[in-house]
Amino acid sequence: MSELIDYVDTSREMFKKELIEFLRIPSISTDFSYKEGIRKAAQFLLAKLEMLNLDRAELFETDGNPIVYGELTTDPSRPTVLVYGHYDVQPPDPLDLWETRPFEPTVRDGDIYARGASDDKGQLFTHIKALESYLASGTPFPVNIKFIFEGEEEIGSPHLVPFIESHEELLACDMILISDTAMFARNTPSITYGLRGLAYMEVEVVGPNRDLHSGVYGGAVENPANVLAGIIAQLKNDEGVVQIPGFYDEVQELSGEDRDAYNKLPFDETAYRKKLGLNALHGEKGYSTLERATARPTLDVNGLWSGYQGEGAKTVLPSKAGAKISMRLVPGQNHRTIAKLFRKHVESLAPDTVTVTVTEHHGGHPAVTDLSFYGLKAAARAFEEVYDKEPLFTREGGSIPIVADFQRLLGAQSILMGFGLNSDAIHSPNEKFALKDFYRGIQTSAKFFTFLP
Amino acid sequence: MSELIDYVDTSREMFKKELIEFLRIPSISTDFSYKEGIRKAAQFLLAKLEMLNLDRAELFETDGNPIVYGELTTDPSRPTVLVYGHYDVQPPDPLDLWETRPFEPTVRDGDIYARGASDDKGQLFTHIKALESYLASGTPFPVNIKFIFEGEEEIGSPHLVPFIESHEELLACDMILISDTAMFARNTPSITYGLRGLAYMEVEVVGPNRDLHSGVYGGAVENPANVLAGIIAQLKNDEGVVQIPGFYDEVQELSGEDRDAYNKLPFDETAYRKKLGLNALHGEKGYSTLERATARPTLDVNGLWSGYQGEGAKTVLPSKAGAKISMRLVPGQNHRTIAKLFRKHVESLAPDTVTVTVTEHHGGHPAVTDLSFYGLKAAARAFEEVYDKEPLFTREGGSIPIVADFQRLLGAQSILMGFGLNSDAIHSPNEKFALKDFYRGIQTSAKFFTFLP
Repeated sequence: MSELIDYVDTSREMFKKELIEFLRIPSISTDFSYKEGIRKAAQFLLAKLEMLNLDRAELFETDGNPIVYGELTTDPSRPTVLVYGHYDVQPPDPLDLWETRPFEPTVRDGDIYARGASDDKGQLFTHIKALESYLASGTPFPVNIKFIFEGEEEIGSPHLVPFIESHEELLACDMILISDTAMFARNTPSITYGLRGLAYMEVEVVGPNRDLHSGVYGGAVENPANVLAGIIAQLKNDEGVVQIPGFYDEVQELSGEDRDAYNKLPFDETAYRKKLGLNALHGEKGYSTLERATARPTLDVNGLWSGYQGEGAKTVLPSKAGAKISMRLVPGQNHRTIAKLFRKHVESLAPDTVTVTVTEHHGGHPAVTDLSFYGLKAAARAFEEVYDKEPLFTREGGSIPIVADFQRLLGAQSILMGFGLNSDAIHSPNEKFALKDFYRGIQTSAKFFTFLP
Repeated sequence: MSELIDYVDTSREMFKKELIEFLRIPSISTDFSYKEGIRKAAQFLLAKLEMLNLDRAELFETDGNPIVYGELTTDPSRPTVLVYGHYDVQPPDPLDLWETRPFEPTVRDGDIYARGASDDKGQLFTHIKALESYLASGTPFPVNIKFIFEGEEEIGSPHLVPFIESHEELLACDMILISDTAMFARNTPSITYGLRGLAYMEVEVVGPNRDLHSGVYGGAVENPANVLAGIIAQLKNDEGVVQIPGFYDEVQELSGEDRDAYNKLPFDETAYRKKLGLNALHGEKGYSTLERATARPTLDVNGLWSGYQGEGAKTVLPSKAGAKISMRLVPGQNHRTIAKLFRKHVESLAPDTVTVTVTEHHGGHPAVTDLSFYGLKAAARAFEEVYDKEPLFTREGGSIPIVADFQRLLGAQSILMGFGLNSDAIHSPNEKFALKDFYRGIQTSAKFFTFLP
């Protein structure tokens, strides 16, 4: 065991260099023009697995982006852990807000800045490096391990579920290990046992067949941008309560136990608010900020566009207006049902003077993991040893739809062992990952495997 | 007189060539990166005036774009006509909707396609060519003429009014002649005697100090795009009635005479609707489509933006959202008062969870010209001779704020002698101007000067 720890400690520079190489690859899945970056990132991971001389390491083609797979069986009687991660990243725009370029990883004050640093390249990499540390240091690996890395997480994993369905035996496991979440706070390890689901929609409003002069036609022709604003305004009330009929029907309300757990979490609301530069927070009455952000469903406009967005003034009555709108869902809600309710409601709000089209981008079910699961306990012990602190059990507001899918298809629960921070600015400019947590992540992963059997 | 007509007829190809040269210049005033195009267009016009050997032709610098001035006095006892036009153009985007490039003028089916073809390069050019036809054919020019061409009409003429104020003597005249409007329909000449005013505003809503992950923060932080939609939704009701308190207070209602004039205008509402690709028109109850578009005030979103607008889905809770919103005004309304009412109302709708900033782009007062004015009668006679049809007297929905300013500062009424068509797609992709109307415009202008004294 001491050889293992030594190897982890003395290999830091090497691990960092490899991570930088990984982060240089612009593997943006939301934009087809980055196809090459996607493939390069998959090949990079495959090469890392091949280097370890596993029983199996290969790249599976799908109708979308490739899936990287690896496998090492040490003793079939021991537990098998399936490590899941994603090598694709969010688009980096707005580019001008980045202090250093998103695909030129830069270390500042102990943090590594790059798109994907925390979400999810830096985090998934900890588990490969943990396994490497066992094998390179000659420490017997105590369990069986499988890796599955996809390149479509940021676009809703459209080909992962079909892949799991057709490879149930290949992926058979006792638990899934995922590092794609954040710790509760710096030096405050936490294990996420609940995730919100997602229904991501797009609404397009089309009026006249071309952009019109607003002076010549204004007043006589319905304006699609005004109509869109009116529709959006009717989706939520002033208190943040979603107005879509049936939206809350299946929501599991928080139990007294849940609320007690929330109350135990250290949370400085003033600091949270100030860090965001806000005068006031806002949300559903009767819920705390943490509850609103993690255990309550909600609806947000993610994007909005119409007409002239340039400098100065253009007197145009736009032909079209569009919005991306997503809803976060909580246990009990089904993303397919919610998408249908959304569509029905938006269509019911559309006047006959325009054409309103609702499309569904992607969705995922919410998920909750059993707090008594032995995998969670091993993870908690590993965290405690490395961080010298008992981890908290929390729920997160984000979505990892695949957690619900793994449960359903492989009958296995997930352990969400997050090493990131909420301040990592994932999906924002200047995404980062603390190098200290990258190294502690490798240590925690290594110890987890030891405590598992 | 026959030499004059001969000259106009035999010079068509030359006039067209010169117009094409003029249209090639990308003189976009809303975008500072086109400064060079602006200057080039001004220089082009100056050269055209210089070629005519007027008493005076020069370029006046302002704090913005230059003003081109020209002057020819034949007999101080005769009327002086001040010809106004603008050499700046609207931005051409969205570029991908143009069939041919906006600054590569192309003739198809007798129409010349280019940004500025109708608004206003093609139209202003008719008067220069009319004067040239007198001078080149040796026909005595029957009145005195002055030219003033500005390069900031599309951004609200910020430096024209100060210029007029400080050059009242230079610009002293008996009437202003402007060709920057459309005929009622093809081969249906019309003289616009009323114009709407404009108040063009921008609203910015700022929430958190950076784009956030909508999963992590959604539900606990107010979304600026949702707030903006809510504000916009409260500016107009479902019937198109503006909800800003005090907005209609000073509006001059249509008289019975006005309504009679409207009823006489030939108008095919079904054809109008179908041409726009609409299932239904829309607007204030109790008014016809033409009245709504020309004699009633209104409010339109001209642009809208927030968050992620790219392909696919990005789960962002945007930091900012913005909109360009303009109001068309009718006689009685003061654009400065309306801008203040707008600001006050929008600010009153802003919740304390975000910061809402209202800025004013530009504005202009509405205007109506006296139907008994002798200049209007000369214009009507000129139209009738060239088009073989008595012109209609109409009001337009667009704004030429300078018309109200000329009246106020120079005490002179304007004659709006439009040669364009409403189908010219000004401010839209594929702007065009019928060459036939370009030539008839030159003829009409020439005859107008003859009938004036």
